Amino acid sequence: MNDMKDSNDINSDEDEQEYQRRIDSIKPHYSTEEELLQFNIEDVTKFIANLEKSNVELASAYIEDPDPVYYEAMTENVAIIEKKKNQLIELQNLLLEKQGLFIYNIVTYNRNKQKMSKKLLYLGQNEAIKMDVLLMGKEYGFSVDQLMELAGLSVASSIYKVYNPSTLSKKVLTICGPGNNGGDGLVAARHLVHFGYKVDILYPKRTDKDLYKNLTLQCEHVGCELIGSLPTLEEIINTYSLVVDSIFGYSFKGDIRAPFDSIINTLSMLPSDLVPIASVDIPSGWDVEQGNIRNTFTPGLLISLATPKKCAENYKGFHYLGGRFLPKSFLEEMNIEIPKYPGSEQCVDISFQEHEDPTL
Amino acid sequence: MNDMKDSNDINSDEDEQEYQRRIDSIKPHYSTEEELLQFNIEDVTKFIANLEKSNVELASAYIEDPDPVYYEAMTENVAIIEKKKNQLIELQNLLLEKQGLFIYNIVTYNRNKQKMSKKLLYLGQNEAIKMDVLLMGKEYGFSVDQLMELAGLSVASSIYKVYNPSTLSKKVLTICGPGNNGGDGLVAARHLVHFGYKVDILYPKRTDKDLYKNLTLQCEHVGCELIGSLPTLEEIINTYSLVVDSIFGYSFKGDIRAPFDSIINTLSMLPSDLVPIASVDIPSGWDVEQGNIRNTFTPGLLISLATPKKCAENYKGFHYLGGRFLPKSFLEEMNIEIPKYPGSEQCVDISFQEHEDPTL
Repeated sequence: MNDMKDSNDINSDEDEQEYQRRIDSIKPHYSTEEELLQFNIEDVTKFIANLEKSNVELASAYIEDPDPVYYEAMTENVAIIEKKKNQLIELQNLLLEKQGLFIYNIVTYNRNKQKMSKKLLYLGQNEAIKMDVLLMGKEYGFSVDQLMELAGLSVASSIYKVYNPSTLSKKVLTICGPGNNGGDGLVAARHLVHFGYKVDILYPKRTDKDLYKNLTLQCEHVGCELIGSLPTLEEIINTYSLVVDSIFGYSFKGDIRAPFDSIINTLSMLPSDLVPIASVDIPSGWDVEQGNIRNTFTPGLLISLATPKKCAENYKGFHYLGGRFLPKSFLEEMNIEIPKYPGSEQCVDISFQEHEDPTL
Repeated sequence: MNDMKDSNDINSDEDEQEYQRRIDSIKPHYSTEEELLQFNIEDVTKFIANLEKSNVELASAYIEDPDPVYYEAMTENVAIIEKKKNQLIELQNLLLEKQGLFIYNIVTYNRNKQKMSKKLLYLGQNEAIKMDVLLMGKEYGFSVDQLMELAGLSVASSIYKVYNPSTLSKKVLTICGPGNNGGDGLVAARHLVHFGYKVDILYPKRTDKDLYKNLTLQCEHVGCELIGSLPTLEEIINTYSLVVDSIFGYSFKGDIRAPFDSIINTLSMLPSDLVPIASVDIPSGWDVEQGNIRNTFTPGLLISLATPKKCAENYKGFHYLGGRFLPKSFLEEMNIEIPKYPGSEQCVDISFQEHEDPTL
């Protein structure tokens, strides 16, 4: 662990002050505040990359020799990375603001180069709840079966774009929570099989409703294997190429209860370079509005459903929007604007940062 | 009409005999039966093309001057074209058989160059009914909402591939029958609007069930206009670029009842060059197994759902398969093989004949 500590010399509070002094001493060299911010961003980015690299090494070491010391070091690193990533986001936003490019609620999308208007883009928790109640009420008349089918299909379609089955050597593990987010995951699992993936499902707290029983049955019929409990970190790394997190959705509040607390803890240890996580609507464990306040995992892919929620505002991974079902009259009623979907696609890339087309 | 009659000199029974004599006199010039079949096919193809061209002229004449004589002539021509098309199919099959290329139940698909095995491909009516009963029964546990959503979505996706909204200058008219085929049409209409089409809906015999009421409501919310009765032929040509026929599906039997008899009559007059028809699962009016025995219209695009039905066996237009939901265990139980869908697509091109990629 020592060489890690050596490279982490800007982590403690004292180091933070030392870092600030170093920045201040360099400052005169930079003609503008923008250049200083650029410097900061590069520095923090390198720091995160180093720590992530160390974590991959730690995971390999842990697989060879499951010494708890490796595990603890990874846990610490995950918390530090998360903290640094938040710092990075703040720095990036500051820079964008200086450059006059970042205005609240105006987001430039990557793939489509769409400019969003000033209408509400990221929904809060209550707005998201209101949205679903409205859509499935008498006025709009959608059934939960319909919306879940379209939502789950769009999750599978997004995963297909970012993690193509031809690039995955191992299976996909879909973890389903007890509510609608878990239902979306079951639908996604079934479509993933149709798209050529091999899918295992962990569904520890099943809901005693026909809809959920039938969705589970449908998964079994396409050949998904339902597993009884979360494999160890080592087993996950050896067996799966991707984890789909459909544990909690937009209605999550309060504490994370068993067994999902330990599941989310394990997922937070998972080196994202080895086994990335794709989260359905909300990264499980995140606060729907404030984001990753519990310092749990950050998914490699987030698929927001219908509209992005507030927690996704500063999310920097692959970000897709799915659930192409909001009627025009509804968007007007809710004063929402959503990005344009391409052609007949069921999902649209709304990643904040420029990235290479993952489908190429 | 006279010049039409002149060009149709192989139509009556006497002419048919004369035609046969002509063929026989030519026969010695042809070294093989194959070459003779080729000659026949070319001849009938030219004949159909001439008659179709005449019908477009008749339609234009009828729009300028709605004289019933034009209408009657078109009606006659439609019946003759249908008869000749059936003859053409027989000739083409004969030729393929001579060339050793045509074996019952082995179909070479165009786009994917897939070879189907000898398993059942085209379902009969009872098999199709059994399929839906099984899928929505306790064993497989699908809800009608789910399957209809996926079926309707695949219809809209297929239409998007063949009749891209950028190539249509006018609206789409979706005609819905009283049953599940009409429900598929309502779902397709809603997705077509999401894909950028403007859609009117004719839904003359509405079913008093919540599902259908809600599907209609959903169409209204995305901006579809529900029209009260079928416009005249002239109005259809002036207002619409495409008609979606979701009147009758795989369970259709017996006589065509009002108002669908006159609707199907009018659609049969529609010059396919001006306003093509896209049929959902079964071209309405066709016998599910024997095909176009009533000499009604032949759609430009047929979207078979889940599996093709027997009536589609010799269909030569754009042919897509949608409804990507059949579980592996189900295919084994029913001894069905379906073509491979590309990637995460909801439809697959299974057109019998080579054609240019309509999406290019």
